[in-house]
Amino acid sequence: MDRRSFLKTSAIGGSAAAASAALAAPAYAQGNRTLTMVTTWGRGLAGVHDSAQRVADSITAMTDGALTVDLKAAGELVGAFEVFDAVTAGQADMYHGADYYFVGQHPAYAFFTAVPFGMTAQELANWYYQDGGMELHDELGQIFGLKSFLGGNTGAQAGGWFSKEINSPDDFNGLKFRMPGLGGKALGKLGASVQNIPGSEVYQALSSGAIDGTEWIGPWADEKAGFQEITKTYYTAGFHEPGAGLSVATNRDVFESLSPAHQKVIEIASAEAHQWNLSQFLANNGAALQRLQAGGVKVMEFPDSVWDAFGKASMEVHQENMGDDLYKKIYDSAMASMKSSSGWINTSSGTYVAQRDRVLG
Amino acid sequence: MDRRSFLKTSAIGGSAAAASAALAAPAYAQGNRTLTMVTTWGRGLAGVHDSAQRVADSITAMTDGALTVDLKAAGELVGAFEVFDAVTAGQADMYHGADYYFVGQHPAYAFFTAVPFGMTAQELANWYYQDGGMELHDELGQIFGLKSFLGGNTGAQAGGWFSKEINSPDDFNGLKFRMPGLGGKALGKLGASVQNIPGSEVYQALSSGAIDGTEWIGPWADEKAGFQEITKTYYTAGFHEPGAGLSVATNRDVFESLSPAHQKVIEIASAEAHQWNLSQFLANNGAALQRLQAGGVKVMEFPDSVWDAFGKASMEVHQENMGDDLYKKIYDSAMASMKSSSGWINTSSGTYVAQRDRVLG
Repeated sequence: MDRRSFLKTSAIGGSAAAASAALAAPAYAQGNRTLTMVTTWGRGLAGVHDSAQRVADSITAMTDGALTVDLKAAGELVGAFEVFDAVTAGQADMYHGADYYFVGQHPAYAFFTAVPFGMTAQELANWYYQDGGMELHDELGQIFGLKSFLGGNTGAQAGGWFSKEINSPDDFNGLKFRMPGLGGKALGKLGASVQNIPGSEVYQALSSGAIDGTEWIGPWADEKAGFQEITKTYYTAGFHEPGAGLSVATNRDVFESLSPAHQKVIEIASAEAHQWNLSQFLANNGAALQRLQAGGVKVMEFPDSVWDAFGKASMEVHQENMGDDLYKKIYDSAMASMKSSSGWINTSSGTYVAQRDRVLG
Repeated sequence: MDRRSFLKTSAIGGSAAAASAALAAPAYAQGNRTLTMVTTWGRGLAGVHDSAQRVADSITAMTDGALTVDLKAAGELVGAFEVFDAVTAGQADMYHGADYYFVGQHPAYAFFTAVPFGMTAQELANWYYQDGGMELHDELGQIFGLKSFLGGNTGAQAGGWFSKEINSPDDFNGLKFRMPGLGGKALGKLGASVQNIPGSEVYQALSSGAIDGTEWIGPWADEKAGFQEITKTYYTAGFHEPGAGLSVATNRDVFESLSPAHQKVIEIASAEAHQWNLSQFLANNGAALQRLQAGGVKVMEFPDSVWDAFGKASMEVHQENMGDDLYKKIYDSAMASMKSSSGWINTSSGTYVAQRDRVLG
């Protein structure tokens, strides 16, 4: 690429050519652009940091560095929960995170991670990529000067780690529990003292007794976080995040300053990470659960009475937000899509898997 | 980009500059490269052609045309089932298709579409992207000079369209039925006369009576194909393709001649299309099934005795191929991954969806 400058120099005059050719390299480097990505994840946090890194690496690799994404984990430039403001203010170019951390900015951000009694990861993908979800994410982002895409997914999250067994809804009364987003608001209606704590600070909070219990993600990420060292009671299926999406949000002015090709690179790299990350969690959770059980963790399921209470509280939380037009619009869109796609999934792969299990044993 | 040629020309002599600048456009175009993609799909075939088009468009857009993919549907350059040979021979640069059409080249190609009693779309993604599936696809491709990636998925396919109800395994005896891949071989063991027919020719075969019945994909694509105009008996869940992957295979010499950035673009664009295409089918099947029912189609499920016969025949087909070392290696890898990930999926989202259905009604 320095050949152009070389030729130009040659045209002007002979002896300066070599020196100018050497100077041409920075001219090429100036064609590259570095985007700073902040995240809600501590460096190395299993799965969630990985998906941020994958988005960054895919963008950099597909553009041969013309867009180089420099990933700053939580605390390296700004704190986990400060990434939203950092990107809207232009302090950083983009963030990777769970948008339900930002329900204070707008409650509808919950839909782009997960809402209680909401969509599985597959139902979320169906809605997002086919039934208007991506466009609604964009409508929400425009309010805050962001261009957002899904860029990760944890799959259905586990109910979490408890200091005692949960046999009735009353057992949540007074329980100090870590749960972000609208799921946390629902749990509050059962009398829990709900706290929102960044992932990399949960272990310390649990081991110090600042909280009695926590959900984090699922067996693999939870094992990596080490919660089994503190408590041995683990609930698998949860109501709060049946398929938690993670987002890549770029400052809208920055995004619009990019070429259409580079905009497409960010879009496709983010979408690919959504699938890749989901498969990462799902491929690792089964073996991790077996290791946890072998290590003495008691694996439980919530009884129906608790699920009933989760359901009632979750519907109340949704109702409280319906006064916001955009929330209602997104809720209606998401639920209509979920209802349509979940029926077919039950009919087709639901029936298939049941028969496979029955026939093959 | 024509500036380089312009400057070069300027150096040579003044008055020829303008003419040469006009000639410089082809010099820029030479920097672009067009890859011809052939497919196993007739132009416009719902979902499957769409995923081929999406891969082509994403590659072209992300590289700003530096790699331009020119999609030739089945019959436009070569026939549907000729794409494999066309790409291995270098007649075309890449194909998009269902690899189980090529079990004649190697039976293990079935795993990268679907095998009977095999993986759902999510289990396939888990295996492919995390548990070695992609590497095994590459090992298989090396034999034939191909570089392959998954690049689409139909989700769980429907049992198909029948001229009569299927109440016992004996009802398949003598039935002329369209079903490709190892599922077709299993159906043959039940006495069916199994045929493999490209998608765009199935309607004609069914309406002429050349076949008594067919599977194609699922309600949405089947409705677009128009099978409900010919027969009204439709089975939803099937045993043969519980999550059919579609592949993008590039001639290996062509692939290796590309820059690492462009290789990565093909890889990520293909993976993104896998997720996008699956969501497309799943978002559309539910409504299509309702329309089919409203139009008089009788929607059925195979009885357990038929599923039992499907299972026995499928296991026989797998056993017959186990003498091939690579087939056995891929089978063992796929089944180990499926067993690990399916358990967690049942425990987590399986339990969640059952509770959601119970609580919300």
